[in-house]
Amino acid sequence: MASLVEALKALIPTDRVVTDPGVVSAYVQDEAQWAPYGVPAALVRAASTEDVRAVVSECAERGVPVVPRGAGTGLSGGANAIEGCVLLSLEAMNEIVEIDPRERLAVVQPGVVNDRLRAACAEQGLWYPPDPASSPWSTIGGNVATNAGGLCCVKYGVTRDYVLAVQAVVGRGEVVRLGRRTAKGVVGYDLCGLMVGSEGTLGVITEITVRLRGARAAERTVVGYFDTLEAAGEAVSAITAAGVVPSALELIDRHCLRAVDEWKNMGLSADANVLLLGRTDAPGEAGDAEADTMADCFKRAGATWSTRSTDQEEAEALFSARRLAYPALERLGPVLTEDVCVPRGLVPEMLSRIERAARDHGTHIANVAHAGDGNLHPLIIVPAGDDGARARAERAFDQIIDDAIALGGTVTGEHGVGLLKRRGLHAELDPAVVAMHHAVKNALDPAGIFNPGKVFGTPG
Amino acid sequence: MASLVEALKALIPTDRVVTDPGVVSAYVQDEAQWAPYGVPAALVRAASTEDVRAVVSECAERGVPVVPRGAGTGLSGGANAIEGCVLLSLEAMNEIVEIDPRERLAVVQPGVVNDRLRAACAEQGLWYPPDPASSPWSTIGGNVATNAGGLCCVKYGVTRDYVLAVQAVVGRGEVVRLGRRTAKGVVGYDLCGLMVGSEGTLGVITEITVRLRGARAAERTVVGYFDTLEAAGEAVSAITAAGVVPSALELIDRHCLRAVDEWKNMGLSADANVLLLGRTDAPGEAGDAEADTMADCFKRAGATWSTRSTDQEEAEALFSARRLAYPALERLGPVLTEDVCVPRGLVPEMLSRIERAARDHGTHIANVAHAGDGNLHPLIIVPAGDDGARARAERAFDQIIDDAIALGGTVTGEHGVGLLKRRGLHAELDPAVVAMHHAVKNALDPAGIFNPGKVFGTPG
Repeated sequence: MASLVEALKALIPTDRVVTDPGVVSAYVQDEAQWAPYGVPAALVRAASTEDVRAVVSECAERGVPVVPRGAGTGLSGGANAIEGCVLLSLEAMNEIVEIDPRERLAVVQPGVVNDRLRAACAEQGLWYPPDPASSPWSTIGGNVATNAGGLCCVKYGVTRDYVLAVQAVVGRGEVVRLGRRTAKGVVGYDLCGLMVGSEGTLGVITEITVRLRGARAAERTVVGYFDTLEAAGEAVSAITAAGVVPSALELIDRHCLRAVDEWKNMGLSADANVLLLGRTDAPGEAGDAEADTMADCFKRAGATWSTRSTDQEEAEALFSARRLAYPALERLGPVLTEDVCVPRGLVPEMLSRIERAARDHGTHIANVAHAGDGNLHPLIIVPAGDDGARARAERAFDQIIDDAIALGGTVTGEHGVGLLKRRGLHAELDPAVVAMHHAVKNALDPAGIFNPGKVFGTPG
Repeated sequence: MASLVEALKALIPTDRVVTDPGVVSAYVQDEAQWAPYGVPAALVRAASTEDVRAVVSECAERGVPVVPRGAGTGLSGGANAIEGCVLLSLEAMNEIVEIDPRERLAVVQPGVVNDRLRAACAEQGLWYPPDPASSPWSTIGGNVATNAGGLCCVKYGVTRDYVLAVQAVVGRGEVVRLGRRTAKGVVGYDLCGLMVGSEGTLGVITEITVRLRGARAAERTVVGYFDTLEAAGEAVSAITAAGVVPSALELIDRHCLRAVDEWKNMGLSADANVLLLGRTDAPGEAGDAEADTMADCFKRAGATWSTRSTDQEEAEALFSARRLAYPALERLGPVLTEDVCVPRGLVPEMLSRIERAARDHGTHIANVAHAGDGNLHPLIIVPAGDDGARARAERAFDQIIDDAIALGGTVTGEHGVGLLKRRGLHAELDPAVVAMHHAVKNALDPAGIFNPGKVFGTPG
């Protein structure tokens, strides 16, 4: 029998089957710096659905794990290499196949970068809403695999809400279409929805049909500076209680502001301990009213300064600070990223529990949050090479997970389980529900090759 | 071994285990008058999750089919009795457990009637959008089981978009919670979404957590009268091309108008062959602009009369005519209900194919449609007892299904597959996709008891 690599090279143009360790090593992990990874047997840069089909068929026959990956911007280790696997990069499948303004949908290959699709839609007066902070780099395929969220999902929902159909290579190499092109449809199980967020464990997505919206009204930005996390949390709670659904409501704490300042010299951290950024895209007077309500809520919760930003450039700069928070912190050392989501009204309580976790374990926790939907991203930072600090960080990580569950929340709002949240998944879900996961996985992946061990596997 | 009925009576208060044929016969079928049904072994009126658990456990042990049902307003035979089954009515589980304005969610038992939930939400300034035409009678459990659509889903989505979590009895009697209470969450597979629209084939839903919206602005109604279905279809196409997303866009043809008039004497059919009813709930000036655009589209497509209705009562009356169309036609004879959904731009083409199907097979087809999302409901009417007409109607039914698939559409937009659309499902879905359905079904229903043979079973 030919070796796996020889067999792949017989099926796929040889320049797309890579074994050079210098090249492959750049692909073995995503942005979850704390998650383990193995050495793959090969990296395949798929250029077509046929390439993917060939890889899956060959791996199914040999029982070799297939780990699909997009841009590798994941934060949970979901795309990390498994020892002896084929790493299947979909980056080269980056064609925008179709944008249909009348039906308000787009068909794309998985390697299309999120911002590129959004820009192409905007040219036709259309809008693809899901906007993870990684949108300049992350791919639609990766967004679909993790059911990515983002800033505007507080009002417009997450990736799942926009995926109408996928083409995928499943089972032992069958190419299937799941979902539909029509506005509605209920023929059989929602297998398309099941693929969304399945983190590569049920097959490899090779084409995606997404629903689009019409371009929206220009957003108004409301900025609030706060002394404490708790006061900012109260402002968030007050906004949801006031019945306003903002088009974004982001929180950035002093650690993040300082890290962004140190990198980009934006002068943010001198003014605020905590920054809240609210946006509304309601048209006309309704937008004015919502912006006023948000500003009022900020003031009543104790904002030290609050303003409706009339300067579009300033507003963009503030939101770019939000997007830069994670890479800015990464410069300081390995970052262990949390992604808990709690009921909106419990944001203040959860923020105070996060502060307590930092104190309890003597660790350093920065916070960014999609505060409007209760999705918090405590970022635990450790000096490189400090094993004691690393152990303390992991204990804080676990405590935050347990606190989120205790408050009726979830261990992952939008990043996915991957490797890092497997213990959290088992803590959150009933064993009978985990058993249902295994049953579905075994039913749809009879060869056991799709990203095995990830998500609901036993934590190492 | 005790008989099934004896065993059930030992587990559940005896007055809730019904075998009197006079009572049971009222429960053996839903509104799909053309679909077959069998004689159940018993009807159980569950009053609690524990009752459901007891039924499922007992039936799993004995291999007896369980057929869950709500109000029985389904239109595909999904809730029809299977020979020897336990019919499990959830109507008595009708408690609104909780409405949480701050988190914008409600928790309900499956037997809560749709309109009752909507009214209870409205009292708190909240809105549960899914509004099937059956909303005065149908239950949330049935709505979830079929992923019901409705009038406003052209703008606000379908039942699936509002289901955050379910409690269900699955497998051999395990009670599980699937989904979450938070705004976002990606921990594991979307098994909650998989339950939505599974038509009772994966378990019995015993509690539902739904997402709510804030109350919306008052709707404006735009009415258009047309001479032909094609002209009305062109108006629908023009509205979507103009970038307007109406909050409802309904079509009613002359057969339906006449049937409603004969029943309720509303005087509609004298003026129009086809009626289009558009609504917008955009606030303030945006709503005025949308209403104007819709009226323009009506006129340019050839409306014989078009007006923005300023009289709320008149508008309500017109929409009630839409809701009454189906029961009005049922008075004339058995109705075979279609539910095809095509890409929006192909509504005129599909309407013309439906007219051709009526001519080809010498049958009588009335049309109501959620025209704005391409979801058409050709209603094929047959004089009671006319076997020849019935056979012709079934051929027209099949031709319409094939036409919808040929246009890139689906055989069921919102009613579900049940029994009537099983041939259509097999025509629409690739065998590899049907095989995935069987794999999921076998994995999650190891005893094979949940509504077996429905949806993707072999058509009888």
